[in-house]
Amino acid sequence: MSFMNRAVLFLLTVTVFAQTPPAPPIVSPEVHSDNTVTFRLRAPNAAVVNLSMEGTKSAPMQKDDKGVWSYTTSALDPDIYGYSFNVDGVGLMDPNNSLMKPNLLSNSSAVHIPGPGLAWETSDVPHGEVHHHFYKSALVGDHRDYYVYTPPGYTEGSTKYPVLYLLHGYSDDASGWSAVGHANVILDNLIAEKKAKPMIVVMPLGYGAPEVVARGRIDMEKFRVNIVKFREVLLTEVMPQVEKEYRIDRRREMRAIAGLSMGGAESLITGLNNLDKFSYVGSFSAGGLGEDYDVLFPKLDQSANKQLKLLWIACGTEDGLIGTNRKFRDMLAAKYVRFTPIETPGMHTWMVWRRNLATIAPLLFQ
Amino acid sequence: MSFMNRAVLFLLTVTVFAQTPPAPPIVSPEVHSDNTVTFRLRAPNAAVVNLSMEGTKSAPMQKDDKGVWSYTTSALDPDIYGYSFNVDGVGLMDPNNSLMKPNLLSNSSAVHIPGPGLAWETSDVPHGEVHHHFYKSALVGDHRDYYVYTPPGYTEGSTKYPVLYLLHGYSDDASGWSAVGHANVILDNLIAEKKAKPMIVVMPLGYGAPEVVARGRIDMEKFRVNIVKFREVLLTEVMPQVEKEYRIDRRREMRAIAGLSMGGAESLITGLNNLDKFSYVGSFSAGGLGEDYDVLFPKLDQSANKQLKLLWIACGTEDGLIGTNRKFRDMLAAKYVRFTPIETPGMHTWMVWRRNLATIAPLLFQ
Repeated sequence: MSFMNRAVLFLLTVTVFAQTPPAPPIVSPEVHSDNTVTFRLRAPNAAVVNLSMEGTKSAPMQKDDKGVWSYTTSALDPDIYGYSFNVDGVGLMDPNNSLMKPNLLSNSSAVHIPGPGLAWETSDVPHGEVHHHFYKSALVGDHRDYYVYTPPGYTEGSTKYPVLYLLHGYSDDASGWSAVGHANVILDNLIAEKKAKPMIVVMPLGYGAPEVVARGRIDMEKFRVNIVKFREVLLTEVMPQVEKEYRIDRRREMRAIAGLSMGGAESLITGLNNLDKFSYVGSFSAGGLGEDYDVLFPKLDQSANKQLKLLWIACGTEDGLIGTNRKFRDMLAAKYVRFTPIETPGMHTWMVWRRNLATIAPLLFQ
Repeated sequence: MSFMNRAVLFLLTVTVFAQTPPAPPIVSPEVHSDNTVTFRLRAPNAAVVNLSMEGTKSAPMQKDDKGVWSYTTSALDPDIYGYSFNVDGVGLMDPNNSLMKPNLLSNSSAVHIPGPGLAWETSDVPHGEVHHHFYKSALVGDHRDYYVYTPPGYTEGSTKYPVLYLLHGYSDDASGWSAVGHANVILDNLIAEKKAKPMIVVMPLGYGAPEVVARGRIDMEKFRVNIVKFREVLLTEVMPQVEKEYRIDRRREMRAIAGLSMGGAESLITGLNNLDKFSYVGSFSAGGLGEDYDVLFPKLDQSANKQLKLLWIACGTEDGLIGTNRKFRDMLAAKYVRFTPIETPGMHTWMVWRRNLATIAPLLFQ
């Protein structure tokens, strides 16, 4: 058999295996040199196709005579944007883009517009390592996982490191902060620039009652139970395990907790109710906590100021949760609990949370 | 604001953020108790929708009066099957399923039909850890990654372990063997049953010339250059790094290399041309090697039998590459090089390769 025939046979196999559609290839997304982006999708029979992009309004796409819908954005700030195509009411990932944003409820694709020097851009600095651990939770009864970032040089040395527990949001899985948040890249860069202390970052699965993750309406009572139960999982399962497995400095001055959205609420519940364990508490766009503050934080008063090195409450000003976050801050102020209020531009998006991490990490363990 | 209003506000935010389509939720895939599976997709205006499932023929889906296409399979063997929907010629992931199969060229979803006791099923045994490493390749010039599995108990002990270099196929990324192949779960189970020796498994990015990964026709000359260059990356970058980072037994009797499809070809090229380093060589459905055997393996002759503890050549009988694999075996036989020929049912699929790994791992380092 000639080489050409072998190549064809091989291609045939790959083609059958990969189920490549017969139509000519589509390029999507196409990032242009001026930071505009063209998105394309072949959907010859669809009636309405919209682009749904993280942090922007839904935009109508236009169909050409070959059945390819497209939309070109205005120039975008360098960042990583999640997006999906809404085809006749159904949100679909971009079939021509391998960059995926994992999520338990809404899959989406992602487009990266590079911006050298930005916190989440991989650069020529020493890189830490991301460890993926698996265990069976005695409390919840499921097989679950957590991720641990160790900074560059961890394996060579013998020093102990401070630790940040970093919590994802509702419908994320344990990979959220590394796969979508690029927490490891952000830490690599900040540590290389000596802006942040070398630290270990623990990224657990953030559900105490995983059945809360379901399509349709969220049951807010289950949501609250989930948050409270998660605190128990973190304190009695994850924390003892990682403190055994890693060289972690166990002093409370060396322990921080922060998270986004649901994980923000979990950070507040776990951190503020366990000030014997945590000195740094951060919430990014916290959601789902509720307002029964006396029930949620029964012992919280200004005596917390002696123990808290940082209480950092951040939210985007275009986030639907900005109101409840301001209300939470009002409660803290009324109790004379000191905190750092952070309001940034932005909605309920990973663009805000990556910046939140890049901003808070330099404040920890200093 | 009442709790209910807060819940609504929260839901609103989550809904905007998640871009949930307004239509009622669809359940897909639905695995029934008899191991039949129903797949569903809302696509009211599509003309033709087919289900493309790994290892099976394309199947036409039927539309109901609400615009929902569905297809129910016959009873399937417990396994993990990749699939996508082909909508008017375009392969799409299932928007209602968060189980994704990462791939650089063809995204797909996956459905898991549990089968207790199967090699890739997570079970109540001690679990190893999967480490994710990042580095800049001096040879290739890109930022890249590799994964390392360490067996249960690795962190506690001080013994050295044998090592298996396990290579993915064309269009996979470095996560292929862990995310899709469940290599860590397979090893956990085999080690717990004392069927396999505790070992370290290194899963590198398998491209020496990453530009070979492109949509459309594969350039076979680039493909070959990629394989040869990968050997250099493995031997001069990945291997020295992991042998420094991990307690790896560096004797050649303790080193194996195996891989699937392109990775099978890479295992043969790297293993058989470096018998001073490898004692065990495995190829699963090898592809893209070519037939210039004298050029590819200039020194290979029966003297290899003294060094090879195992040369394991596997392929599915329904794989388009079975012919070239038999031809390769004929070459080995003609040179009196001993090998183990393995033909199993199956096509060019992960179902075959997970079983290949579960079969070869117990043969290593014994």
